[in-house]
Amino acid sequence: MALASTQAAQARRQLVLNLFIYPGGHHEAGWRYPGARPERLLDITFYQDLARSAEAAKLDAVFFADGPAQVDNIRYASRFRLEPLTWLSAIAAATTHIGLIGTASTTYYEPYNLARLYASLDHLSGGRAGWNIVTTAVPQASANFGLAETPSHAERYARAAEFVDVVTKLWDSWEDDALVADPVSGLFADDSKIHPIEHVGRHYRVKGALNTPRIPQGRPVYVQAGSSDDGRSFAARYAEAIFTAHQTVESAKAFYADIKKQAAGLGRNPDHVKILPGISPYIGSTEAEARQLHEAFSDLIQPEYSISQLKQITGVDFSGHPLNGVVELDAFKDAGPAKLVASRFQLVVDIVRREKPTLRQLIDRLAGARGHYVVVGTPEKIADEIQHWFESGAADGFNVMPPWYAAGFDLFASQVVPILRKRGLFREDYTGRTLREHYGLPRPQSQFAEAARATA
Amino acid sequence: MALASTQAAQARRQLVLNLFIYPGGHHEAGWRYPGARPERLLDITFYQDLARSAEAAKLDAVFFADGPAQVDNIRYASRFRLEPLTWLSAIAAATTHIGLIGTASTTYYEPYNLARLYASLDHLSGGRAGWNIVTTAVPQASANFGLAETPSHAERYARAAEFVDVVTKLWDSWEDDALVADPVSGLFADDSKIHPIEHVGRHYRVKGALNTPRIPQGRPVYVQAGSSDDGRSFAARYAEAIFTAHQTVESAKAFYADIKKQAAGLGRNPDHVKILPGISPYIGSTEAEARQLHEAFSDLIQPEYSISQLKQITGVDFSGHPLNGVVELDAFKDAGPAKLVASRFQLVVDIVRREKPTLRQLIDRLAGARGHYVVVGTPEKIADEIQHWFESGAADGFNVMPPWYAAGFDLFASQVVPILRKRGLFREDYTGRTLREHYGLPRPQSQFAEAARATA
Repeated sequence: MALASTQAAQARRQLVLNLFIYPGGHHEAGWRYPGARPERLLDITFYQDLARSAEAAKLDAVFFADGPAQVDNIRYASRFRLEPLTWLSAIAAATTHIGLIGTASTTYYEPYNLARLYASLDHLSGGRAGWNIVTTAVPQASANFGLAETPSHAERYARAAEFVDVVTKLWDSWEDDALVADPVSGLFADDSKIHPIEHVGRHYRVKGALNTPRIPQGRPVYVQAGSSDDGRSFAARYAEAIFTAHQTVESAKAFYADIKKQAAGLGRNPDHVKILPGISPYIGSTEAEARQLHEAFSDLIQPEYSISQLKQITGVDFSGHPLNGVVELDAFKDAGPAKLVASRFQLVVDIVRREKPTLRQLIDRLAGARGHYVVVGTPEKIADEIQHWFESGAADGFNVMPPWYAAGFDLFASQVVPILRKRGLFREDYTGRTLREHYGLPRPQSQFAEAARATA
Repeated sequence: MALASTQAAQARRQLVLNLFIYPGGHHEAGWRYPGARPERLLDITFYQDLARSAEAAKLDAVFFADGPAQVDNIRYASRFRLEPLTWLSAIAAATTHIGLIGTASTTYYEPYNLARLYASLDHLSGGRAGWNIVTTAVPQASANFGLAETPSHAERYARAAEFVDVVTKLWDSWEDDALVADPVSGLFADDSKIHPIEHVGRHYRVKGALNTPRIPQGRPVYVQAGSSDDGRSFAARYAEAIFTAHQTVESAKAFYADIKKQAAGLGRNPDHVKILPGISPYIGSTEAEARQLHEAFSDLIQPEYSISQLKQITGVDFSGHPLNGVVELDAFKDAGPAKLVASRFQLVVDIVRREKPTLRQLIDRLAGARGHYVVVGTPEKIADEIQHWFESGAADGFNVMPPWYAAGFDLFASQVVPILRKRGLFREDYTGRTLREHYGLPRPQSQFAEAARATA
């Protein structure tokens, strides 16, 4: 029976599940919830324990967001940043299988520095690194890097494309067999297989090669999260996994179909582009208990914070607007995505159009997971939702966004994952060691390898 | 007796000892020596084990050099780079006390990125981070960052001074008690104690604040290694520990006296500037055995590599020069430190002037530890040398540079350290948890703290 279910699982398309780690939890008041341990927010062992729990549940990866600025209102929420590369390196040392995805910006990093950091994470983790490629758009970040203004959307994506081109070449610059390390002959590296990349482009000039041998995965897994038109075509071209925010299965399906089609149009195998919406589960043993849990979080919301977040997403200031007053669609008519994250702005406008919420209802919706899909219910209901999205062409898996830690994730791991496993939708155990293997992605060949040159 | 020696140790000035980790060992052929395990050169557990050995011997810190380019001839030597921040984060996870010093360049990093990486290393290690501040001078690095040419020496130091000013402000930008995290009141951070730094300078404009709370040590320990005039005055102003290369105790004493005097002249406590020359020990149970060990390494040298390194240090190409031919001082008369590391160039010229070596002898001298002090002898002899330098005003401690790993360090830890301990020169056990505590350095107050403002 165990064997049969294992075989069924192998035959069947498998979910991808990442644990998205955000200091204090994804609900903006998560750090205040009983048991959340805010005194451990800077304690690496707290995060190592979380990653070990995720690994015990056989999840694909842990994921850290990032941005090089203090953007959020820190007065009421645990919205500082944990630097992903260092944090993930320390987590790597405490785990053996789980993937390690960190965010870094193409706007504020030098390609050579970034390529080294991710190469090192992949070496020290034995092939578990993923890079979430972002094109950071906030003026606070630009002000930390001496930029008079934040580059335009198109400019940032043009820069990002060249950036990805450069770091890809750097990660390819040592062929797999360039490292010889033969103490008898004295040959350490075959330098005919180490290639200065000699990149000269519009934004970057990088001679290369990288100063470290090729990494276990060849390249880290390329992850992306932009949902604007530019973001989608960038993702379809480069991304191997896409994080995305959808409130409805219909919206997710449209996004899914669009990306897969664009990827196929570019000659890529659509199966090698995993679409992973966020999901924030509020789990109770009954529907009523789950609703109670969700309400307990709502009671901890501090509207002053929520309203500052709403302004950050939409550009519209609702201070002074009565909490019980309905939010009119008109309020957003002069706002626009010019200097905002386009997809996040649209998501809020869609909620207002669809649900005609009061200000209180709107901030409740966003407090849960900043616009990601919030599900409140029993483990079965949550598993049903996941299965429905997975089987109706809306998702290849999910970024799991617990409202708080550690119990908010432990509930998911102990209650929901076993149901998915029983249904044959999620692995019984790891079958590989690298993130590429977990995701079912090929290991890329170096573009400088002889075989690649011959077929070029 | 044990108690008496402990008391004596407490009363007496204590040595600082760091383990300098360089892939494959400090001898350029170290990776070829029997037992060196070149197949583990990219295996993080190899380095974690080394750091644990250093911690078991109660050393102050492990140290990683760095540079953002493949500079050395990789064909014959294990001279790739391990990225220090990620590598040290993974080592932090495997240790509890030992300090973690990583090198990063002020020429090729953005201050906000660098400040975050070191802040994170300090958080995740519980206050063990040190930053070795370098002003990288190699054209290969500039070519990896799109710089048409490497900035001049003076320009690099001017930039470095502003850089240190900026990151110091960033590390000070959260006062110690800015983080409140009180779930009952809902106050996460007292934002009146978080200070945008509003830096506008010649090279950098950084608004700040940092996006993470203040670190355990306040600031990482500032380490520096430049020995030129600019380097010395920079070190006297900013450094809390200085790594330096000297072939003779006289040269080290002159350097020591100069730095301490300059530091005192700037109103600093000279005890808070630790002078740490490199020392590379070849240890045998008899003098003859030690010499044999050293010769075994010399036999593994590949002159083509050594000559390429000599060219890199001096700008002079000795290919074609007979190995048994004497190197004339004249060979360096047209060369100069303009585009080189000034102190390293001078060190080679001094050896040539003092010792009139053949080319073979010169490359033997440099192969051991790139110009650092090489000592060949019994454990007692090595302990005697260390004590002599320490007690004659040449050093506050040493950067220990094993010719190879792991046995090359294990010999030092098991044979030399106990002698130093018996003589009351080195700690029996850690008395603190942070690198500042190991080094006897004060924890700096934030320049933005009320007390600091009041006395300003």
